[in-house]
Amino acid sequence: MMSLMSASAIASPNIAFIKYWGNRDDQLRLPSNGSISMNLDGLFTQTTVTFNPDLEKDTLILNDQVADQQATSRVSHFLDLVRKLADVNLKAHVYSKNNFPIGAGIASSASAFAALSLAATAALGLELSEAELSRLARRGSGSACRSVPGGYVEWLAGQSDADSYAVSIASPDHWALVDCIAIVQVEHKPIGSSQGHLLANTSPLQHARVEDSPRRIRLCREAILRRDFEAFANITELDSTLMHAVMMTSDPPLFYWSPVTLEIMTTVTRWRREKALPVCYTVDAGPNVHVICEESSSEIIREKLLQIPGVLHVLSAKPAGPARLCQT
Amino acid sequence: MMSLMSASAIASPNIAFIKYWGNRDDQLRLPSNGSISMNLDGLFTQTTVTFNPDLEKDTLILNDQVADQQATSRVSHFLDLVRKLADVNLKAHVYSKNNFPIGAGIASSASAFAALSLAATAALGLELSEAELSRLARRGSGSACRSVPGGYVEWLAGQSDADSYAVSIASPDHWALVDCIAIVQVEHKPIGSSQGHLLANTSPLQHARVEDSPRRIRLCREAILRRDFEAFANITELDSTLMHAVMMTSDPPLFYWSPVTLEIMTTVTRWRREKALPVCYTVDAGPNVHVICEESSSEIIREKLLQIPGVLHVLSAKPAGPARLCQT
Repeated sequence: MMSLMSASAIASPNIAFIKYWGNRDDQLRLPSNGSISMNLDGLFTQTTVTFNPDLEKDTLILNDQVADQQATSRVSHFLDLVRKLADVNLKAHVYSKNNFPIGAGIASSASAFAALSLAATAALGLELSEAELSRLARRGSGSACRSVPGGYVEWLAGQSDADSYAVSIASPDHWALVDCIAIVQVEHKPIGSSQGHLLANTSPLQHARVEDSPRRIRLCREAILRRDFEAFANITELDSTLMHAVMMTSDPPLFYWSPVTLEIMTTVTRWRREKALPVCYTVDAGPNVHVICEESSSEIIREKLLQIPGVLHVLSAKPAGPARLCQT
Repeated sequence: MMSLMSASAIASPNIAFIKYWGNRDDQLRLPSNGSISMNLDGLFTQTTVTFNPDLEKDTLILNDQVADQQATSRVSHFLDLVRKLADVNLKAHVYSKNNFPIGAGIASSASAFAALSLAATAALGLELSEAELSRLARRGSGSACRSVPGGYVEWLAGQSDADSYAVSIASPDHWALVDCIAIVQVEHKPIGSSQGHLLANTSPLQHARVEDSPRRIRLCREAILRRDFEAFANITELDSTLMHAVMMTSDPPLFYWSPVTLEIMTTVTRWRREKALPVCYTVDAGPNVHVICEESSSEIIREKLLQIPGVLHVLSAKPAGPARLCQT
């Protein structure tokens, strides 16, 4: 019986080209706007969930350490959703590990909740469709819904819990892009994304950013489908800056860019404009810069990035597949 | 006769706390939103205009050099407005000199067209009211209308040429603020303000920025009138970032911030938040940072700014009076 109530899954983090920032419903994590991302290959969270009648409470081991109360509580609340779906009342032991370091500029909550969704539902014998799994993952962390399908992914904002989930718009091998993540700083970010989302509507610019988002979604989706790097670069950089414009004008203001972040951004744009290199930037809620390029240029971009003062190292990732079950 | 047709005037540049960016009418320089500024004492343009029946065309000597065709043409077109007002058809010799260096991070067009407006009208015997003079200066360079009245100034956006002009909202001695201008770079800016204004409406954020501007104008005016530094600082920094948000998301994007600009901005905010220093920043269409503080703290702020790597030097200016006639 025990073996049937345990399952393991792995999922990759993702980098958004059209960003998620702000919710129309914070409780359900219904986003203010749709988003588009790429899963990142070679980076993953592996999570094993074991439901056990002998447990009195949920436990979480995160990266080989007993997790703190806040993280455990977030996972436990998420497991309540899974227990409700399966109509069981068993506590679980969750073992979760990332193969990328904390503070590497990659949010782990997306891959973590995508892997947790798949492992927990499988452990209880639930067989969810990809859309159902994506909806579920969204409840743990908004962007986790995008780590459920594979390759290039669009999160359909939707109107309700039922229709807010992510779908694949192109497979990993559709377009050989590489995310060269320029790590500039290994510090905790000043404010976490979950808190940051709550501030989005305090910016006088958020409404305009959201209102314009269907246009950006369309331009980005079409650029990916046509493999049009120039169009992709322009809309990706614009969307990144729009998100940071909202962040920097919220109350209190959130400045995630460091001076080195800005230096990399303007340098990357110059490489594209002046040297015709297929490269552009996007920046998440932290100072590291995701430098997106075509695979044919990824080695030269990596070397050039390492020459910029303040760049500590560069992690590279190609498009990854969907969340999947695996052996423990 | 000759002596009656010559006049000299001086005017100070100004620093905007609520920024002017984008026009509702580019030809008439009717701004998309109202703005608030402070004239900068100790810095000025001095301009002498001499109308002369013997001249075949307008000539311009700018900072002791014969000006290029572009600058001469801009001045000549402006003088056409003055000639029309006075109903004369005489060409003029214009001698104009700034006491602050080009590339010092201070736009000279505001003080230049304010001084030119006053000198040219006086030379032709016109006696314009302050509002009429401000309207006229606006036609040469939008922000020049704010260098006509003294002290703390509000540019009433207006609906037409007739009601778009600046008025003083507080005298120079109302509040002892100091603008400590941190000069980080002596380079020409990538794109001039006149061209930049034309791009404002290509940003998805400009409409929201403009729509929210009456609120910011009110908050800034009230903070100045009450001498409430904390309220003044918050709205001034927000407004600066809103303008740069529009610039950075226009098509093509305009990035005026350099890495050092960003470093100074975040450092200044930290001084206020963590050390309770009465200091805030505002940034115009260039990389230099206008660090605004109360006079009692200006010496310590100046010294602290000079310790930031990348700050070349610091210029300081108190509130200045209006444009005025002077001896040649």
